[in-house]
Amino acid sequence: MEERLRVSYQLTCAAGETPTGKARGVALEQTVELPDEALSFDIRERMVGRVEELVPLGGRRYRAVISYPLEAIGSEISQFLNLLFGNISLKRGILITGLQWPRRLLASFGGPRYGIDGLRALTGVRRRALLCTALKPMGCTAPELAARARAFALGGVDLIKDDHGLANQRDAPFRERMLRCQEAVREANAVGGGNSLYLPNVTAGYGDFPARLAAAREAGCRAVLINPWVMGLDAVRWARDEFALAIMAHPSLSGAYFGRSHGIRPELLLGDVVRAAGADGSIYPNAGGRFGFSIRTCEAINRHLRGELGGLKAAMPVAGGGMDVRRAADWVRRYGVDTVLLIGGSLYLKGDLRAASAALLQALEAETDDA
Amino acid sequence: MEERLRVSYQLTCAAGETPTGKARGVALEQTVELPDEALSFDIRERMVGRVEELVPLGGRRYRAVISYPLEAIGSEISQFLNLLFGNISLKRGILITGLQWPRRLLASFGGPRYGIDGLRALTGVRRRALLCTALKPMGCTAPELAARARAFALGGVDLIKDDHGLANQRDAPFRERMLRCQEAVREANAVGGGNSLYLPNVTAGYGDFPARLAAAREAGCRAVLINPWVMGLDAVRWARDEFALAIMAHPSLSGAYFGRSHGIRPELLLGDVVRAAGADGSIYPNAGGRFGFSIRTCEAINRHLRGELGGLKAAMPVAGGGMDVRRAADWVRRYGVDTVLLIGGSLYLKGDLRAASAALLQALEAETDDA
Repeated sequence: MEERLRVSYQLTCAAGETPTGKARGVALEQTVELPDEALSFDIRERMVGRVEELVPLGGRRYRAVISYPLEAIGSEISQFLNLLFGNISLKRGILITGLQWPRRLLASFGGPRYGIDGLRALTGVRRRALLCTALKPMGCTAPELAARARAFALGGVDLIKDDHGLANQRDAPFRERMLRCQEAVREANAVGGGNSLYLPNVTAGYGDFPARLAAAREAGCRAVLINPWVMGLDAVRWARDEFALAIMAHPSLSGAYFGRSHGIRPELLLGDVVRAAGADGSIYPNAGGRFGFSIRTCEAINRHLRGELGGLKAAMPVAGGGMDVRRAADWVRRYGVDTVLLIGGSLYLKGDLRAASAALLQALEAETDDA
Repeated sequence: MEERLRVSYQLTCAAGETPTGKARGVALEQTVELPDEALSFDIRERMVGRVEELVPLGGRRYRAVISYPLEAIGSEISQFLNLLFGNISLKRGILITGLQWPRRLLASFGGPRYGIDGLRALTGVRRRALLCTALKPMGCTAPELAARARAFALGGVDLIKDDHGLANQRDAPFRERMLRCQEAVREANAVGGGNSLYLPNVTAGYGDFPARLAAAREAGCRAVLINPWVMGLDAVRWARDEFALAIMAHPSLSGAYFGRSHGIRPELLLGDVVRAAGADGSIYPNAGGRFGFSIRTCEAINRHLRGELGGLKAAMPVAGGGMDVRRAADWVRRYGVDTVLLIGGSLYLKGDLRAASAALLQALEAETDDA
């Protein structure tokens, strides 16, 4: 049977728009970019998206399902993004609510190299939720950030990542910061018997990205942080293939896609898409923090990262964005142990980073058996 | 005087949000990502954005101006994007309405290599508006697309670009398509005495991008099409520096940023930002076409591409997205001759591409003196 990408939309018709016209408009816009009258029979049949379903949802809203031939994509993530939301991003009232992936497309993207099991193997954490924190704030020198990395590692934090805003600024340039923090974590592991990983932020200009990845790998880092929406999503896939480092994806800029009636549902973008592109962990702003995701959205992201997706490895949900240490255990009970809790500010407010980390870790250990 | 990036926002406060709290939240989120209590005096003073203005606009809306130290960015476009809208994209009710650029930041991004004057020199078009069209639809073979390129070139179209959805699909793989179309345009120029340029779409996976640029340059192309929001914006700057090709930027995906009360105003993103990154022409969806930009927005984009911006070269506005051949001259009268009209579907509907192009060009020639 022919494999097609099926995309579900919630269409909101403006005055003068018909649901049929709007759905057909999407099908044309995302493929041939020509009106029906300008198309040959062959191209119309073979390339244009097919409106498979169109169901009223009440008011001016409609559910549409459009299927696309893989020939309209090829095998590149860049063209997949064009087809998914490229030109229709510039219209209004088009919300992508579901994706049914052809196995062949997922296979060409490849998914996580490590995934949940791989991250557990790298960190040596078998049964509990993983703890992640961020080195910050910008303005600190590299030695200051390294001292924090050391304290977190001695406290047992599994994943110690750069804040996503730490790039190559003067206060703590990439190379010096990465080398010092990696060394601090290595030493702390040797002293304390831990197994913490340091994840430098390798997000960079197009031309500098390979050198940052290479430097990180050479320094002994096993995992890195990448902002796919800043770098271009395919940078994740490329880094996975070329450097074999575990990858945590940051959602910076992605919120632009999360309009209520226009955009892409978060569980698809930060779930399916980021996972398919090769992220082993996907950071999202957890409910109850500084951002506005509902628990329902967060649980949907968790499902999309962990559930069946064309045989790709499961990726770790990384719940962050203003999470309180006091509620950490609650979140594990709710989300299950295959979760990374990303806790920054709330740990910093405790003052003694090592002690606060150790206490938090104990709370997570206690949640092992219930899960 | 210290140079700072000043960003103007329109803040829409939700229930429970105060304007002061929301503005300070933005200033913290986009820099240190820590609450005030966790910051040293030095970091708070030196790194956190400063709320310079906060003015009620009526209802729950406020105008805020926040200035940021360049030390929070460094000189990378990637970190600039993080600071501009990275994490706050995940919040609601934050619309970026203005940018006051420090000259030093613009200088480090560099702007267009060719700009308006350079594109005029490359095409040999001195006084009239430029005409651009797109090769389409996907599903055509490379020879079929090349035949269209030839017809457009014989008709005198200045810039003949790939449709942005032409990537590396089976029907017309990049290399074959690019070589055939470039050869067709070269031949047509030789036969007809014209000076048309073919712009292949070099948007690609991260790793394939350099090879596509190199192949295009080797084949004799002088300009290319790039989707910055798919590739990562810095890919534009990098291509400008490494390949010296003129660059037309496509707005695919950028519409995600154009929410009414949350996002970035189009004239800033498709104007300042794309220009600063190095695009010589910036495509936007013109008013009255298939997309929803107002004339006011389009004129603002034109101004931001052409006006003074830290000494950077002016870039060509490329107005497209469903423009009608019959209205082309009107748009030139309205926008001025330093405009590229991108007309695809409306030309295709005429059937005889060469004759339709030639007629359209005549209409543009007639607008030279009035402008």
